[in-house]
Amino acid sequence: MKKHNFSAGPCVLPQEVFQKASEALINFNNMGLSIIEISHRDKNFIAVMDKAQALALELLGLNDKGYKALFLQGGASMQFLMAAYNLLENKAVYADTGSWSSKAIKEAKLFGEIEVIASSKDKNYNYIPKGYAVPSDADYFHCTSNNTIFGTQYKEFPETNIPLVCDMSSDIFSRQLDFSKFDLIYAGAQKNIGPAGTSLVVVKEDVLEKVSRTIPSMLDYKVHLDKDSMFNTPPVFAVYVSMLNLDWLQNLGGIQEIEKLNNQKADLLYTEIDRNPLFTGFATKEDRSVMNATFNLVDESHKEVFDKMWKEANINGLNGHRSVGGYRASMYNGLTLESVEVLVETMKKFENTI
Amino acid sequence: MKKHNFSAGPCVLPQEVFQKASEALINFNNMGLSIIEISHRDKNFIAVMDKAQALALELLGLNDKGYKALFLQGGASMQFLMAAYNLLENKAVYADTGSWSSKAIKEAKLFGEIEVIASSKDKNYNYIPKGYAVPSDADYFHCTSNNTIFGTQYKEFPETNIPLVCDMSSDIFSRQLDFSKFDLIYAGAQKNIGPAGTSLVVVKEDVLEKVSRTIPSMLDYKVHLDKDSMFNTPPVFAVYVSMLNLDWLQNLGGIQEIEKLNNQKADLLYTEIDRNPLFTGFATKEDRSVMNATFNLVDESHKEVFDKMWKEANINGLNGHRSVGGYRASMYNGLTLESVEVLVETMKKFENTI
Repeated sequence: MKKHNFSAGPCVLPQEVFQKASEALINFNNMGLSIIEISHRDKNFIAVMDKAQALALELLGLNDKGYKALFLQGGASMQFLMAAYNLLENKAVYADTGSWSSKAIKEAKLFGEIEVIASSKDKNYNYIPKGYAVPSDADYFHCTSNNTIFGTQYKEFPETNIPLVCDMSSDIFSRQLDFSKFDLIYAGAQKNIGPAGTSLVVVKEDVLEKVSRTIPSMLDYKVHLDKDSMFNTPPVFAVYVSMLNLDWLQNLGGIQEIEKLNNQKADLLYTEIDRNPLFTGFATKEDRSVMNATFNLVDESHKEVFDKMWKEANINGLNGHRSVGGYRASMYNGLTLESVEVLVETMKKFENTI
Repeated sequence: MKKHNFSAGPCVLPQEVFQKASEALINFNNMGLSIIEISHRDKNFIAVMDKAQALALELLGLNDKGYKALFLQGGASMQFLMAAYNLLENKAVYADTGSWSSKAIKEAKLFGEIEVIASSKDKNYNYIPKGYAVPSDADYFHCTSNNTIFGTQYKEFPETNIPLVCDMSSDIFSRQLDFSKFDLIYAGAQKNIGPAGTSLVVVKEDVLEKVSRTIPSMLDYKVHLDKDSMFNTPPVFAVYVSMLNLDWLQNLGGIQEIEKLNNQKADLLYTEIDRNPLFTGFATKEDRSVMNATFNLVDESHKEVFDKMWKEANINGLNGHRSVGGYRASMYNGLTLESVEVLVETMKKFENTI
């Protein structure tokens, strides 16, 4: 029996994506070959890469606006480094809204001066800082749109006239934004894009080639752009599944449609968290993430009972991160409304049991 | 109908590996979840990673000898950079035996003085240089054990008392060597390990932490070692399939057994290349690769006829690299003897046709 998978990432993808991926492992495109045994220079795979890149730009509304999409390896953690390697000449400014922001800051410090202009560390990252000014003399401003661990999400981004760099690993393709405000967007695939093993980089070409350092080939966005993500052997399978998943999203009606479903799922769960006297939300209400709902038991002594109940309800991946404790329900694009309904029913049943 | 896949990489893997991978895409370990939707912190995946690392060391005979195995992202191209970042303080010496060696040299030059002490560039890399001395004052000596594009392979490695670094991307796990002579071995997975999207790094721990520079976390072997390849989200699926493939090799009897089969396949094909008056081998005989046989038509005007014949014989991936032209038959571990027999029969049939 299929589980209700609330895992924070790698996470659930649409069932038809798993099905198509499974079939392609045996016979891809009717070639009589597995997707993982063909050359990445084969026209059948080049078409996959081209389509994945085109779908990414199209879904974000960034066609013909000077942007390119890349599928690289190394996850968002490699992008912490690459963003700084490629864009940081003197000084960059960062907002620190959680563990991933902090790691991005740490890596960037190797390449120039980093000023943290906003932080929510004082309250264990349970809110998104607001009302600060972004200095205009920095090379770029870096932020993290959604904080998976703490369950917070930017609803509005600071206005700035310097390049805007954003780690959108855990909420890209989940909601409508004016993506053209951003100059560099990156995201590890393993939430709303595809399986772990690739990351999407969307870059406005005119921000590149402005630093004086020599960049190693594998870390140079320009090198990868010039080779259409094929400078070296790409992670073929991860790109293929990402293409399937982005194609699924486009057929559904794009971000506009999935956003409605995502809001429905989040409303349902947060309503129950606020209603049910046994639970309390972790993140400040106005900054709550539509992707990751973090919540705790009011009385920790009930933990064993609740844990048993959700596991019996075929729910997977509900444990919170150790930094927050409690529970985290990740409701990425691939999670159905039905799964959230099962969780909410379980929370109600738990209330009636205690 | 299944193809005979001579692709240079990504390449054929054993059919049972494709089958198991396909099943795990739907239901992994009877969890009711796809292998690509589970958390990499799940005990079921940690067991996969542990087993993949253990199998790699065991198959190479490097258990309990101070080595660790890592599965990282970025392919061998990222290792060109990481090897230098982690080991190069002042000067390193390299052998240049082909395109991949040259790329490794290019990236290393960003981190110190590089001396190329041996090269076969003068003859379009059709041989392995011999008889040179490795200086003892360098930080390490770097070589490429098998040259996929040119079809050459080291039969013996130079003796040296400095750390020995080897790119074994295209022949690791194919033949017996005294692997304990090497201090750092790396290999892109997409030949004898698994699908594209991960690379294996086998490192003797005592060569690390000797450079004075600060290494970015994602490029630091020590960081990855301390986290058992889980510093950030690993390429879950690529590691899983690599584990399946290494497990297949171990069940077969390990490198000792596959080496016999690989020699049988290579002997069969090279005998035909040498016998058939329509073909000529590219690489010098004594340096011929057991993995990649490169050969050309004596008369290029027969190309259309031969190409039609091998395609009709259900053969895939036989075109040579543009640097060499002609043909390249890659005979990695997953390729059956039967596939080589079909190729040889086709070459004979071609001879009778012309």
